[in-house]
Amino acid sequence: MTMRVVFCDPSCEPEPWLEALRRHLPQARVEAWADGVEPADYGVAWAPPQAFIDQQPRLKALFNVGAGVDKLMRLRLSGHVPVVRLDDAGMAAQMAEYVCHAVIRHYREFAAYEAQAAQGAWVRRPARPRAQFPVGVLGLGVLGSRVAQALRQFDFPVRGWSRSARSLEGVQCFAGDAQMGDFLAHSRVLVCLLPLTDDTRDLLGRERLLQLPQGACLINVARGEHVVDDDLLALLDDGHLSGATLDVFRTEPLPPEHVFWRHPKISVTPHVSAQTLREESIAQIAGKILAFERGEPVAGMVDLQRGY
Amino acid sequence: MTMRVVFCDPSCEPEPWLEALRRHLPQARVEAWADGVEPADYGVAWAPPQAFIDQQPRLKALFNVGAGVDKLMRLRLSGHVPVVRLDDAGMAAQMAEYVCHAVIRHYREFAAYEAQAAQGAWVRRPARPRAQFPVGVLGLGVLGSRVAQALRQFDFPVRGWSRSARSLEGVQCFAGDAQMGDFLAHSRVLVCLLPLTDDTRDLLGRERLLQLPQGACLINVARGEHVVDDDLLALLDDGHLSGATLDVFRTEPLPPEHVFWRHPKISVTPHVSAQTLREESIAQIAGKILAFERGEPVAGMVDLQRGY
Repeated sequence: MTMRVVFCDPSCEPEPWLEALRRHLPQARVEAWADGVEPADYGVAWAPPQAFIDQQPRLKALFNVGAGVDKLMRLRLSGHVPVVRLDDAGMAAQMAEYVCHAVIRHYREFAAYEAQAAQGAWVRRPARPRAQFPVGVLGLGVLGSRVAQALRQFDFPVRGWSRSARSLEGVQCFAGDAQMGDFLAHSRVLVCLLPLTDDTRDLLGRERLLQLPQGACLINVARGEHVVDDDLLALLDDGHLSGATLDVFRTEPLPPEHVFWRHPKISVTPHVSAQTLREESIAQIAGKILAFERGEPVAGMVDLQRGY
Repeated sequence: MTMRVVFCDPSCEPEPWLEALRRHLPQARVEAWADGVEPADYGVAWAPPQAFIDQQPRLKALFNVGAGVDKLMRLRLSGHVPVVRLDDAGMAAQMAEYVCHAVIRHYREFAAYEAQAAQGAWVRRPARPRAQFPVGVLGLGVLGSRVAQALRQFDFPVRGWSRSARSLEGVQCFAGDAQMGDFLAHSRVLVCLLPLTDDTRDLLGRERLLQLPQGACLINVARGEHVVDDDLLALLDDGHLSGATLDVFRTEPLPPEHVFWRHPKISVTPHVSAQTLREESIAQIAGKILAFERGEPVAGMVDLQRGY
């Protein structure tokens, strides 16, 4: 019997995705999801509607076209269908790039140099001791670990926090709620790379942000819901925080009139820190579908209880 | 007999340097150079006048407080006094930072995102295939090698050129004049980290820059004299080059009215890509003085014939 694969991403034109799936799985019948499409063996989806889940009762696995599965977790899922997320697919290198660019920009004060250049002003700013610029990575999954390793290249002291204890070469690791305060207290730059779950929603509010040292910067490349926007703004305005680089927001697209866009201490990018690369993603998903068919284990299985 | 060390840097306040030298070499007599100061055993200098050389005939070694020795090479030096340059002293990490920030900025189009943010415009730019963004590092000394290794972290194809053949893990290496054309032809970003010598002065003029692929960017962190300014401007204006990040200039400080400051395709910084860090530099020089005293070999000896 022919294997059936159904694709659903209401935010994009499906044709290039279907074409890529067909090329990688020539033996399968690949269709775009629409009301009434026949139940398939495998689902490939990004932020699908509840109706997609309800009308696909026969899935052997559901693949999330992204690293964060929070949008899927808001739906009523069937508990016995494995959910699988992308585990890299070209995203880790992009994330390392984005974060290193932002950290170096804060550390080396390149925004200030650009303002000076606009005035034709040749003024050297004193080099700051690297030891006084520890970078803390919140979340040490596939992306967080890669980011931590990339930061080490530049000799920054790198600290990491994860829910359960991890060990990474050259990274001072902290784990669990009990060590969160110690972790924050010496992170001159905080990089948020957490999954979004009920435990992490609104985590970076006034209380946690105040635990960062005076003059700290925040880089959020996870989800907008991790940060309490008004608390962030208040701490930037009173000088406790010196800057924020934000790629993710509670409302996306960020509305044109939002205060974040033109705030002098905030850099905004439109959720591009790690874009899903179609070819790499589909190649990875196709490989995992074939592994499922052969009964082999696959990486990136989501723990539905834990939420990531 | 007490060892004498003389310090000379007409561009800076000598006191903190003398203090650091005295701390690291308590057995030595350390003085700032001035007309008539007694001949010393070791000289520590940055861009000294000819009179300094002429009045210090007894030096066992002359230490250059920087990586590039081109300013010393313009003086009449005594051929039998070893000249020693700084071989890292915290500069390699700074250089890797500066160059990675600039490369990522070009590749990920962060300047364009900042312009969009000023308009409140949420527009994603398509991710560009990394394979089409090879970075070429011109000069594979201590700094160039470190820069090449740092770029590899982000999965850029990295190419390197050096005068004599080198081999670096993960870097496609080219050597000598014969391979310069091949090296340039596929370097989407060109990073200049060459020493300044008679062979490399004006190297990056129209002919060489035209060998770069259409849309290439130039990052110059070596010396201003490597680049022919008018040729660079012409190629930026006609679109053959898409951008330039310049930290070094023929005249420093770059005059306030210079066209580079506000050119839309040029980023200017005031020669800060790798600042000499006093503590690290003096610690390194003091270590080498002690090695000289013990008759041991030291790293960073300059070949006066070759000029670096």
